[in-house]
Amino acid sequence: MKQNIIKRRIMWGDLDSLGIVFYPRFYEWFDGCGHLYFESIGLPMNELWQRKSLLFGLVETSSRYFSPGRYNDRIRIVSEIEDLTPKTVTLIHRVERISDGTRLVEGLEKRICMDVSDPHNFQARQIPPDIFEILQNARAE
Amino acid sequence: MKQNIIKRRIMWGDLDSLGIVFYPRFYEWFDGCGHLYFESIGLPMNELWQRKSLLFGLVETSSRYFSPGRYNDRIRIVSEIEDLTPKTVTLIHRVERISDGTRLVEGLEKRICMDVSDPHNFQARQIPPDIFEILQNARAE
Amino acid sequence: MKQNIIKRRIMWGDLDSLGIVFYPRFYEWFDGCGHLYFESIGLPMNELWQRKSLLFGLVETSSRYFSPGRYNDRIRIVSEIEDLTPKTVTLIHRVERISDGTRLVEGLEKRICMDVSDPHNFQARQIPPDIFEILQNARAE
Amino acid sequence: MKQNIIKRRIMWGDLDSLGIVFYPRFYEWFDGCGHLYFESIGLPMNELWQRKSLLFGLVETSSRYFSPGRYNDRIRIVSEIEDLTPKTVTLIHRVERISDGTRLVEGLEKRICMDVSDPHNFQARQIPPDIFEILQNARAE
Repeated sequence: MKQNIIKRRIMWGDLDSLGIVFYPRFYEWFDGCGHLYFESIGLPMNELWQRKSLLFGLVETSSRYFSPGRYNDRIRIVSEIEDLTPKTVTLIHRVERISDGTRLVEGLEKRICMDVSDPHNFQARQIPPDIFEILQNARAE
Repeated sequence: MKQNIIKRRIMWGDLDSLGIVFYPRFYEWFDGCGHLYFESIGLPMNELWQRKSLLFGLVETSSRYFSPGRYNDRIRIVSEIEDLTPKTVTLIHRVERISDGTRLVEGLEKRICMDVSDPHNFQARQIPPDIFEILQNARAE
Repeated sequence: MKQNIIKRRIMWGDLDSLGIVFYPRFYEWFDGCGHLYFESIGLPMNELWQRKSLLFGLVETSSRYFSPGRYNDRIRIVSEIEDLTPKTVTLIHRVERISDGTRLVEGLEKRICMDVSDPHNFQARQIPPDIFEILQNARAE
Repeated sequence: MKQNIIKRRIMWGDLDSLGIVFYPRFYEWFDGCGHLYFESIGLPMNELWQRKSLLFGLVETSSRYFSPGRYNDRIRIVSEIEDLTPKTVTLIHRVERISDGTRLVEGLEKRICMDVSDPHNFQARQIPPDIFEILQNARAE
């Protein structure tokens, strides 16, 4: 499995009134980690978009919350491919506190290959063979 | 089923580069709708917190995306209880475009009853009987 | 002065660890109120963009914070034109708590007329006469 | 001048429909950079808060926008003290694109020393002498 790892600190603006991460922030990070994962395997989203009018759009996302993230926690988000089908790729993002390895959150993003050449009417389509192969290799690695 | 309905418009700041809603925004709205649902059945979260040191924290969230939301779309978010167990309550939030009823997104929030009297160590606990009854009635209504 | 007034409640997700509004949220609301102001005087931003390749982009923003916003506060944001020049229009947004009229925040957005027909190279330009007149009337009203 | 420098990339979730950074994101980053600046001079905000019931709250913020930030731009945010008075400290945050040094945004945060021992009634107060000296040294450095 090819993994991509992002490190960050939990900032004041990530917190809610309880002093723990407001959960939609995790999804913002997952979206960023998804883009960085694609880039790490040679499939930068903006090039897919600009050159091939392709994007991997979301069909499903989900998260399980195990332990709260708090101010200044250093975290690591480890992303890899969880599943691959002819039209979809599912990424898993695992968030851990670096100091003690505590698992904070686990999130899934199921993304579908979309033709976005018509900006008002996105169409799901099969993942092109060359891209599918890259994803398959990243998964098998 | 007791429902709570929120209406809003999709604003410029909700959009991504494709001109569609950036998906973590839906979770921000779901969180808000969750709070408003609790309030609508007589269980305002801030009073639970201030008076009883209770909160309903997230254990799981998920969403399915059916159709993109675009600038200026008027949407309706309909929230109700999907499931209730001794410790947890699951809300479902359905997002529709008002003009034509198109389903945009469906989201789940599974929340667990937590004792937050120690701010550094939240503990899961059974939902107190009086609150459980209110939730059960809202579900049966 | 033509005013546009928006009402909203302060939600859990708007708060920081101190239980008061995290200040970038005010700017998100100001951006939304700016768009709604333009719409209220017959200049919806998306039509300016789609039909005339014009947008009013930000050159300066600022805010003064008088009193914190807290959970569940009902607020009113009153927007009007503060200044108008051949290329720029400045909006002022005043945020008040509805219950007692307390002034929470005052924000300014100075926006410049931009030709965005080339998405990679936006150019400042004079406000077209017909649009300038609408803005002038809204200011004088 | 003691400076603190943060580097980051502009992510998909930072963008608006035009493909440029949605301006409230800059304020989120400035808030983070403010906290990191205080930490870099030995004044971590959470310790000030927990141990001394002090915080530096916002009284004014402002930004000027020179050039738009776009997807994947690597940026550098350079923070330093712009002004210091008995009760307030003003930070300036300069955002540049790393590749060519283009100035994107310049932001100011004027923060006032607050006694937050009563969570419902924050009081402005003089900056304690030991903290004032640290800030003065950071400025003179």
